[in-house]
Amino acid sequence: MRPSGRMPDQMRPITIEPNFTRHAEGSVLIGFGDTKVLVTASVEERVPPFLRGKGEGWVTAEYGMLPRATHTRGSREAAKGKQSGRTQEIQRLIGRSLRAVCDLKALGERQITIDCDVIQADGGTRTAAISGAWVALRMAVNKLMAEGKLTSDPIRHKVAAVSCGIHQGAPVLDLDYIEDSNADADANFVLIENGHIAEVQATAEHATYDEEALLRLLRLARMGCTEIFAAQDRAIRA
Amino acid sequence: MRPSGRMPDQMRPITIEPNFTRHAEGSVLIGFGDTKVLVTASVEERVPPFLRGKGEGWVTAEYGMLPRATHTRGSREAAKGKQSGRTQEIQRLIGRSLRAVCDLKALGERQITIDCDVIQADGGTRTAAISGAWVALRMAVNKLMAEGKLTSDPIRHKVAAVSCGIHQGAPVLDLDYIEDSNADADANFVLIENGHIAEVQATAEHATYDEEALLRLLRLARMGCTEIFAAQDRAIRA
Amino acid sequence: MRPSGRMPDQMRPITIEPNFTRHAEGSVLIGFGDTKVLVTASVEERVPPFLRGKGEGWVTAEYGMLPRATHTRGSREAAKGKQSGRTQEIQRLIGRSLRAVCDLKALGERQITIDCDVIQADGGTRTAAISGAWVALRMAVNKLMAEGKLTSDPIRHKVAAVSCGIHQGAPVLDLDYIEDSNADADANFVLIENGHIAEVQATAEHATYDEEALLRLLRLARMGCTEIFAAQDRAIRA
Amino acid sequence: MRPSGRMPDQMRPITIEPNFTRHAEGSVLIGFGDTKVLVTASVEERVPPFLRGKGEGWVTAEYGMLPRATHTRGSREAAKGKQSGRTQEIQRLIGRSLRAVCDLKALGERQITIDCDVIQADGGTRTAAISGAWVALRMAVNKLMAEGKLTSDPIRHKVAAVSCGIHQGAPVLDLDYIEDSNADADANFVLIENGHIAEVQATAEHATYDEEALLRLLRLARMGCTEIFAAQDRAIRA
Amino acid sequence: MRPSGRMPDQMRPITIEPNFTRHAEGSVLIGFGDTKVLVTASVEERVPPFLRGKGEGWVTAEYGMLPRATHTRGSREAAKGKQSGRTQEIQRLIGRSLRAVCDLKALGERQITIDCDVIQADGGTRTAAISGAWVALRMAVNKLMAEGKLTSDPIRHKVAAVSCGIHQGAPVLDLDYIEDSNADADANFVLIENGHIAEVQATAEHATYDEEALLRLLRLARMGCTEIFAAQDRAIRA
Amino acid sequence: MRPSGRMPDQMRPITIEPNFTRHAEGSVLIGFGDTKVLVTASVEERVPPFLRGKGEGWVTAEYGMLPRATHTRGSREAAKGKQSGRTQEIQRLIGRSLRAVCDLKALGERQITIDCDVIQADGGTRTAAISGAWVALRMAVNKLMAEGKLTSDPIRHKVAAVSCGIHQGAPVLDLDYIEDSNADADANFVLIENGHIAEVQATAEHATYDEEALLRLLRLARMGCTEIFAAQDRAIRA
Repeated sequence: MRPSGRMPDQMRPITIEPNFTRHAEGSVLIGFGDTKVLVTASVEERVPPFLRGKGEGWVTAEYGMLPRATHTRGSREAAKGKQSGRTQEIQRLIGRSLRAVCDLKALGERQITIDCDVIQADGGTRTAAISGAWVALRMAVNKLMAEGKLTSDPIRHKVAAVSCGIHQGAPVLDLDYIEDSNADADANFVLIENGHIAEVQATAEHATYDEEALLRLLRLARMGCTEIFAAQDRAIRA
Repeated sequence: MRPSGRMPDQMRPITIEPNFTRHAEGSVLIGFGDTKVLVTASVEERVPPFLRGKGEGWVTAEYGMLPRATHTRGSREAAKGKQSGRTQEIQRLIGRSLRAVCDLKALGERQITIDCDVIQADGGTRTAAISGAWVALRMAVNKLMAEGKLTSDPIRHKVAAVSCGIHQGAPVLDLDYIEDSNADADANFVLIENGHIAEVQATAEHATYDEEALLRLLRLARMGCTEIFAAQDRAIRA
Repeated sequence: MRPSGRMPDQMRPITIEPNFTRHAEGSVLIGFGDTKVLVTASVEERVPPFLRGKGEGWVTAEYGMLPRATHTRGSREAAKGKQSGRTQEIQRLIGRSLRAVCDLKALGERQITIDCDVIQADGGTRTAAISGAWVALRMAVNKLMAEGKLTSDPIRHKVAAVSCGIHQGAPVLDLDYIEDSNADADANFVLIENGHIAEVQATAEHATYDEEALLRLLRLARMGCTEIFAAQDRAIRA
Repeated sequence: MRPSGRMPDQMRPITIEPNFTRHAEGSVLIGFGDTKVLVTASVEERVPPFLRGKGEGWVTAEYGMLPRATHTRGSREAAKGKQSGRTQEIQRLIGRSLRAVCDLKALGERQITIDCDVIQADGGTRTAAISGAWVALRMAVNKLMAEGKLTSDPIRHKVAAVSCGIHQGAPVLDLDYIEDSNADADANFVLIENGHIAEVQATAEHATYDEEALLRLLRLARMGCTEIFAAQDRAIRA
Repeated sequence: MRPSGRMPDQMRPITIEPNFTRHAEGSVLIGFGDTKVLVTASVEERVPPFLRGKGEGWVTAEYGMLPRATHTRGSREAAKGKQSGRTQEIQRLIGRSLRAVCDLKALGERQITIDCDVIQADGGTRTAAISGAWVALRMAVNKLMAEGKLTSDPIRHKVAAVSCGIHQGAPVLDLDYIEDSNADADANFVLIENGHIAEVQATAEHATYDEEALLRLLRLARMGCTEIFAAQDRAIRA
Repeated sequence: MRPSGRMPDQMRPITIEPNFTRHAEGSVLIGFGDTKVLVTASVEERVPPFLRGKGEGWVTAEYGMLPRATHTRGSREAAKGKQSGRTQEIQRLIGRSLRAVCDLKALGERQITIDCDVIQADGGTRTAAISGAWVALRMAVNKLMAEGKLTSDPIRHKVAAVSCGIHQGAPVLDLDYIEDSNADADANFVLIENGHIAEVQATAEHATYDEEALLRLLRLARMGCTEIFAAQDRAIRA
């Protein structure tokens, strides 16, 4: 029995509120249950130094957590003067996940920066961020296409992410904070709509796991991402 | 004529959504028109080193702006590794404004940290932050009182803030971004409900101003704060 | 009765020693009683990135306090690796105050940087800094004019600053350290010789204040600045 | 055909030179072909603040790359003043991998810090680091046991790591730099001698991958780790 | 012929103005010609962590250069967020030089921090700083002795420093900026009044030098320090 | 009697292993007894900003100490976010010492960066670093000459360095850690093969020293450097 009373393969309610803020080219507030992440996509007509003059674009991400998104207040990274290893790890993952479904040549020499700021945290902030980031990116690219700035669509696939884990011996989908903090193992899957995988990060926390467990977690992740893909569709069509 | 079509003494719609997030002891999303600031109040049972053992509490504030809260994306302070002078100036002002209405002895040896994070910016973010901060602080103190942790109410007064300015020669209330960026002078007033003043910061931008103008701006600020005090009341009672 | 025995509207002796150091284009040691600030003006034939190619100049300021300028030694900001919020707030104020009386187009594409370093502190360091900064700036501009590098004078007015406050219930002019550390309210006024105001920063410390008090402090500030303008004149003519 | 002429399931020569330096409680120079990492284990009789008084120990890791370990010189992180996201990601992975096989209660209130410094890089530095780290840790723990400071062995299993990837369409074991820089997908596996998994990080680089590919990479990793476990044994027995 | 017209063994005028500022326990403005350094000695009744409980004191130094002490403005270290290698090298030298003549046990568990801030630079700032630092330290220790806080004098000797160099083939004493910037070799000597040496730092700049040259520079330094010792005496007796 | 049993004028065994790593243009592992420093020379076809367009090259150095090179683990400078004063002092000394024997015009507009990383420390790391740096530089320059990129040899002389000190009243050569940590005085000499001096840094640690002692230390250093020059020759010829 899960603390939340959910079934092992049951996602929390997925909510995606498009256009949550008005300045960004793409913007959503995504919720996986009580986890809420504000995601914006910002288009800039320039690329980082290593890409200048190559006729290619770039998609990158930054991640932050508001100090009181969590149960007890954490310190503000801007005040401490540096981003934690965890923050950097997450924002690198988000950027990689999006680039895995983009044709950067088709984007042209421009950069899209995805900002993922966690307003409220209850487990799974990085996977909610990736799933919302795709929607914000889609909105920003749609805007570029509507403005005639792109001749072909640089987004090749839909991408979504979800966490799974072994909790009290059982594989479960979409861990919330209580489950996450005492899971035996914890895995984040970034999946493509066509069944392919963009990234697997599966970590032993209190116990190592076997191949069978890895595959069962992957199967749960596929179920979760199917729901997320549907929610992404609805948000884009809204 | 103001760019927004407002009358010179007309505030933008004030919205205060209490309990916008669930972990903090106090939390509101305050809006002055399109300016939206998420404010949380966090209670911690400890005080900064300079107050240890003195039987007094502390109220302090931190301020941040999400990178794409603005028309064009700004860089993330956590990534740059330092808070700008502007950020530090604003968070010091917010903390001072709240302490001006608090009896820190009555608070006991605990600290309340107010986090003000700008979700969307359209001028007046610091005054919206102060006005929302009071509500979050009130909620957190009410919670402490309900838990029997305080014997008397440490909040002595209501405090609110609004910006005024000289725009195209005319004094106007509650500048939005367009007005703010080409105002001749720009003033932030932090006012107490009993008519007293906690802080005046009045700055010549494109033109210096005279005593008469300062007084007219103060009068406008009093009108604006009257509306904000009413909105604070409604939010607390909600 | 003031701790120093001064009358409520009595400034401390104002001393301005021009050419205190020899390399800078303008240099003074200004004293408001025991507060001593070394101010230099440095001309550089370049502007910050945001002004390049616009045919305009820039005037900016930096502020520092020697570690033992104060009663007990403070830590050195260079050793700590960052400037405090207070330092940044003050240097931004100094720069704004000078720009309020300058025609930056008339200055041409060059930058004048004002360095204000407090040698000895006894209250009012920022107002002494602003008052001395104007003299150093005037000297540097005079030098540029004498060299034929400017066709018209970019300085339109004289500017000076002084602090006032409510001390033991009474409005007093030019607070020294003892008064400053237990004032009820504390205000810094940056005034133009023609009677106009460049900046008011009036802060409740131990008690909020009313409009009447604000006006009485402004009146004292006008008296103080009249004396400072005269001292500036003498220093320039020396 | 692989650039190095190796078979798809062929590791580079594994060399582990124990006691490469003399001060550390454990020390090895591990080589996976031309990748050379100096690993030391340092025992300290204290734990980080979050563990004080809990009767538990801690195992943690730091990672660095000498500036000219690589084909072209990279900048020194100490000179830049911060560790890159990549560095932090890797050192967190090394620490987690070791803790997955340790009983921290059995270690007692002491910390073992593993320093992994890459002397020469040719792909797979993080997996060589983990594999060498286990040996250095084993040596340091053996020393503690010989000194009678531990009543039971805190190391429960052997752990090793290897990278695999899809290179020109084929799954290959132990990528060198040339393969790594144009692999379609790249995976790091941290495996336990009993067949369990401590961590999988499998990332799409130029192409996403499917479940079948993931499993084939895992199979290769098991082959590679079998060789590494044998080399670890030889090094410990030496 | 030296640019200044001085004889090879001629010091610039040495001026030492005691009590230049009033808060510090010791304070002088020392000048070697146009080089002017403000030196303060601050007594604190605490020692750094590595000395706690050992019954010994500590003498340390910090050094800074005002941005416009030099011919062209340098950037402010506090604004850059770090002290240069040169600054750290100099402040370490000043501290070592003073500790070479102190009995730290006799000082008791207290720290004296010497702050050396260069107001105006014309070569030899570090040697002027050391020479002035001894006077400020002497004043602070005299104060401690007068207050009965010390039972014996912790200062065992007088120490002074001077720079010498090979300029246009000739050994010269007390280099000014013009000589310093094109000297073949440049040496700083820290000498004790009894003829002993506390530190020699002799560096080839444009040409290496031989043993004979080193000895001739040392001889010049002895002559210079004799004058400085006399000036220190006068300052203390003043 | 020295702790190691060496004679006063006896160096520890000098080992120089060329080509210790393979990517750098020059690379050695130098040992003075148990002190081991990995030195690489990296050629880059660019110069620092202050030399651009001047037709001159630059030789510079960076120094680091692996955290567990020492008896007890030190903290990693990259993790602390800054290089210590000691580190900066040493790397500046290494760079100066090499430039003292180079004709930077003959090097052309390119930079050679010497990285000195201490693998194991037992006193004298900076002098071993300088002595090894010359070999790495020589190898890199030989490579440039073999490639026809240089028309004349920019290295004019051989340079080496050694530490000497007064230990228990006696002058000794090549201090190891035990001697270094309780020497009365400690001197580093950087010597040129032709008998000239590039740098002397002679510091009183527990006792000041006289001219006679300085000369005896210099004589020991000459003996030590003669051995190092021979070892450098052998390494280059290897």
